[in-house]
Amino acid sequence: MTDPKQSNGEDFLISRYFRPLATDPGAFGLVDDAAVLQASGAEIVVTTDAIVEGVHFLPDDPADTVARKALRVNLSDLAAKGAVPAGFVLTLALRAADDAWLAPFARALGEDADLFGCPLLGGDTVSTPGPIMISITAFGRVPPGKMVGRGGARPGDRIAVTGTIGDAALGLDILKRGAAAAALVHDAAASQMLTGRYRVPRPRSALALAVRDHASAAMDVSDGLAGDLAKLCAASGVSAVIDIKSVPLSAPAATLLARGTVGIEAIVSGGDDYEILCVIPEARFDSFTQAATLAGVAVASIGTVIAGSSAPRFLDAQGRELALKRLSYSHF
Amino acid sequence: MTDPKQSNGEDFLISRYFRPLATDPGAFGLVDDAAVLQASGAEIVVTTDAIVEGVHFLPDDPADTVARKALRVNLSDLAAKGAVPAGFVLTLALRAADDAWLAPFARALGEDADLFGCPLLGGDTVSTPGPIMISITAFGRVPPGKMVGRGGARPGDRIAVTGTIGDAALGLDILKRGAAAAALVHDAAASQMLTGRYRVPRPRSALALAVRDHASAAMDVSDGLAGDLAKLCAASGVSAVIDIKSVPLSAPAATLLARGTVGIEAIVSGGDDYEILCVIPEARFDSFTQAATLAGVAVASIGTVIAGSSAPRFLDAQGRELALKRLSYSHF
Repeated sequence: MTDPKQSNGEDFLISRYFRPLATDPGAFGLVDDAAVLQASGAEIVVTTDAIVEGVHFLPDDPADTVARKALRVNLSDLAAKGAVPAGFVLTLALRAADDAWLAPFARALGEDADLFGCPLLGGDTVSTPGPIMISITAFGRVPPGKMVGRGGARPGDRIAVTGTIGDAALGLDILKRGAAAAALVHDAAASQMLTGRYRVPRPRSALALAVRDHASAAMDVSDGLAGDLAKLCAASGVSAVIDIKSVPLSAPAATLLARGTVGIEAIVSGGDDYEILCVIPEARFDSFTQAATLAGVAVASIGTVIAGSSAPRFLDAQGRELALKRLSYSHF
Repeated sequence: MTDPKQSNGEDFLISRYFRPLATDPGAFGLVDDAAVLQASGAEIVVTTDAIVEGVHFLPDDPADTVARKALRVNLSDLAAKGAVPAGFVLTLALRAADDAWLAPFARALGEDADLFGCPLLGGDTVSTPGPIMISITAFGRVPPGKMVGRGGARPGDRIAVTGTIGDAALGLDILKRGAAAAALVHDAAASQMLTGRYRVPRPRSALALAVRDHASAAMDVSDGLAGDLAKLCAASGVSAVIDIKSVPLSAPAATLLARGTVGIEAIVSGGDDYEILCVIPEARFDSFTQAATLAGVAVASIGTVIAGSSAPRFLDAQGRELALKRLSYSHF
């Protein structure tokens, strides 16, 4: 009888590509059908996010960037909750076991797992006649009771956001040969920066402890700043006022906005930013910005929490309110 | 500005169908993008299994049985590891938000979550142009160091299996209008029993503590008894001898085997059994069977672990070895 390992393509695939990533003792080298996650006195923060070919990434996106995006969108959630990564499980639905796709996918996934200290604990590899889909459930640890939720924002708190907003939406527009592509046809560096932001998010893991120690509420910006802020405000039972000109933009995004290639609406309602939106009590704001500086993460104060139940208002330099037709991306 | 909840179909879908299932305080009513899982002094056992339309379930399978299968295949893993369910997260990829499908899906999922004490903690709902896919990551608790792995089987240990083997594979054959369908055309009750076994597995959660207390190794039988036993033996560095006539069969399966409609090979290599295959040291076997009786789960002793590295042998009443062309289902 042949060795079952050799006769079973799924086991071979796991052994070849994913076992090297299963460095945590609780993963049992992926030979078991379950893993053990040690709480180590902490609470386990659990988040799950899936990406689908043609929906969250483009069919011609390189396999390595797909792997990084799949893990990083989950790491972004953990960071926004103030949690330190502990590991992840992977569900991978593929049409075929294609080495040319799997080798760079697994290599990049392993590199990011090392970089962010988030080892592969287990998974399931299944065949599908449809688009490639990667579903990741990631785990983090926080001291008991310390997960930063969406519900703690109070009137008077400062609203801050990391990095820059709108780049990924512009990057997607470039990849789809939209107006931004034409406007940046002679600026390859700007195009590459923006498309890179779409393909490979930068989870703000370095800011997790500062968020945990100072934020009254936080979430990552994944579906658009306006819509995500509205969700946070609804969960906290508050409203907010945002100063549009304080929303941090990259140089290419600022240029495209100044030229009229893109409107501010598209920037504040575009998805895939994977920055952290956080709410900081005024008395802690200086400590928070100092911690952010030490962590090497840029943060910008963009507005204030106010009492009320209306949707957050985005005001321009003249105090005029921006009319947003849609707040964020929705799947249905 | 409209209420963002109303303008966002994804949020509405979550609120309408899945919030009622999020009964655990750590789920935060699904308003957050992460959940908290309390270890409560235990180790967390993590398992993940996905099911894909057209691969793991049939396009015309009812939505309620799809929901039950998606959760139960994961509960089956937890039971085989000796773990008590603690909760699960759900990734649901859909072509459209179809109430006629979602309502029975969510209702059945909630019923099973209650039945097995495994509440919904969080999830992600995404659109796909492809087949429906449900990926679940389930969590269980075991006392530290007590997860039952695949690697502990020792020569002389007894090999046992719960329930009956092969029913689900025959049920799938019936649903695909195969030979079993023709043979049982006048026996609707038998057909329904077998197709029911394919569509709605029965996780052996009641046996989890008996497995934890007595088994040296265990796993659930999901890809076929022969292949799964080979994996367990490989992980333990042992071999095994199975007495074919001891493999427990349901009355319909025994009838189809006696008539020659199906061969024993198809039964021991067919998938979707979701029974527990466990290895019990001889000295504990009586205690184990007593615990199983108290739990109301039938267990059958089917063979013995032996030293060696060859694939497990399946012997018939005359001591002849069964030649198995394939050991189990593989996706690739």
